[in-house]
Amino acid sequence: MLKTIAFDADDTLWVNETIFTSTREKIEHLLSTYVTERSLEERLNETEIKNLNLFGYGIKGFILSTIETCIEITNSAVSGDTIQQVIALGKEMLQHPVEILPHVIETVEQLKDQYQLMIITKGDLFDQESKIARSGIADHFDIIEVVSEKKESVYSKLFSKYNIVPEELLMVGNSLKSDILPVCQAGGHAVHIPFHTTWSHEELKVEETNGYEYGVLESMQALPDYISNSSIP
Amino acid sequence: MLKTIAFDADDTLWVNETIFTSTREKIEHLLSTYVTERSLEERLNETEIKNLNLFGYGIKGFILSTIETCIEITNSAVSGDTIQQVIALGKEMLQHPVEILPHVIETVEQLKDQYQLMIITKGDLFDQESKIARSGIADHFDIIEVVSEKKESVYSKLFSKYNIVPEELLMVGNSLKSDILPVCQAGGHAVHIPFHTTWSHEELKVEETNGYEYGVLESMQALPDYISNSSIP
Repeated sequence: MLKTIAFDADDTLWVNETIFTSTREKIEHLLSTYVTERSLEERLNETEIKNLNLFGYGIKGFILSTIETCIEITNSAVSGDTIQQVIALGKEMLQHPVEILPHVIETVEQLKDQYQLMIITKGDLFDQESKIARSGIADHFDIIEVVSEKKESVYSKLFSKYNIVPEELLMVGNSLKSDILPVCQAGGHAVHIPFHTTWSHEELKVEETNGYEYGVLESMQALPDYISNSSIP
Repeated sequence: MLKTIAFDADDTLWVNETIFTSTREKIEHLLSTYVTERSLEERLNETEIKNLNLFGYGIKGFILSTIETCIEITNSAVSGDTIQQVIALGKEMLQHPVEILPHVIETVEQLKDQYQLMIITKGDLFDQESKIARSGIADHFDIIEVVSEKKESVYSKLFSKYNIVPEELLMVGNSLKSDILPVCQAGGHAVHIPFHTTWSHEELKVEETNGYEYGVLESMQALPDYISNSSIP
C-alpha cells in the first residue's frame, strides 16, 4: 500500500542544471582570451569534483571552484574584475527565479490529498530553503528535508525518522545516482523522470542500476496514472 | 518537568569563532601592503552582513565575502595568487580539527540518560554535518538539527516536529541573539554560557532580552547543578 510520495527538487520539481550550464557558458566567455571552452569545462569539472568533499553540493561551492579554476587556468593572470564578475554571476544564480517544471503543480495538487508528500533535496541548506520558499508550492508537502548527500544510509535514516515503511514509499527524481538507486537499495520504490541535462557527476549508466526495478516516465504528467496502474500494492 | 536539553554547537560544544578570528588575521597579513587592519576588518564585516541574505551563515559564504572585499579594497589590484591563498585558508577552516570545549564531554555524558539531548546548530549543512561527525560526541544526542536561521518560528517548528512542549525544554548556547532570546520567545527555557569571542553580528545587548528570564553560567561544568537546583519544575 503506497502511503508516501517523495520528490527530488532540482530538475524534478524545478529547473536547476540549466542555470549552471548557462553560468558556465558566461564564464567561458569571460575567460575566452585565456582559454578554449573545452579546456575550461574539463578543468572546472575536475576542480568541482575534487572539492566536493570540502564544499559539498551547491552554488557557493561551485563559485569557489570556478574562481580557483580561473586562477589556475590563467596562471594567476586573471584580473580582480573578472573574479568580481564570477562572484556576481554566483549571486545571480542564488537569486534566479524558481521555474517550476511543466505539470508539477497539477500533479502535486492531484496527489496531495491521497498521499503524504515529501521533498527530499540535496545541496546547500540556505539556498534550497530559499528556493522552496520562493517556489510557491511548499505548502503542498507534509515533510521537507534538505540533505547533504543522497545515499542509502541517508534515506534509511529519514524513513525511520518519519516512521515510513520503505515499501510504502515512492521516490520521484531525475538522478539515477541520487534519487533512484539509493532508494531502491533502502527498500523503497522509485520512478525516474529524466531531465534533458544532467551534470556528468550525477550520471549513472542504466546497467549500473541492474537488479532493481523502477519506473521511467517522460514527464510528471504521467505520474498519477503510473501510480494508479502500477503493481505497487 | 524538564525533558529535553538542546545545545547550540559552535562556541557552545566546540570552538568556532576563534577559527574565523585567526583566519581574518591571516588575511589582514596577506593584504597588509594594500590596507590597514582596521579598514579591512570593517569592510569585511560590512560585506559579510550585506551578503548574509544570499550566502547564509558558514565558511563558504565567509570566503566569498572575503574575496569580494579583497578585490574592492585593493581597487582590483589584488593578485590571483593572493585570492588563491584566501581560498586555501577557507579550505583549512573547513578541515580544522573540532576542538571540544572544556567540560562538554562529561556534562553531556552525565545528562544523556536522564534527558532527551538535542543539537540545534545554525550554518552550512555540509560543514556542520562534517563537524558533528568529526566531534566524536554525536552518538550522545537523540536529535541533531541543522537550521539556516535561528529565530522563534524556526524553534517553534522544530518543537512541534518532535512533539516537544516548549516549557519542558532548556536551550544552552553562547549567543543571546540566536540561542537565548528566540527560545524564550518560543516558550522554552534557556541558559547562556558566553564564549570569550562573539561575532559582532551575533551580539545583543543584555537589555534587549529584557522581559525574559534565563540562566547565565560561566562554564558547561555548572550545567548539571544548575538543572538540579533550578526552579524549572
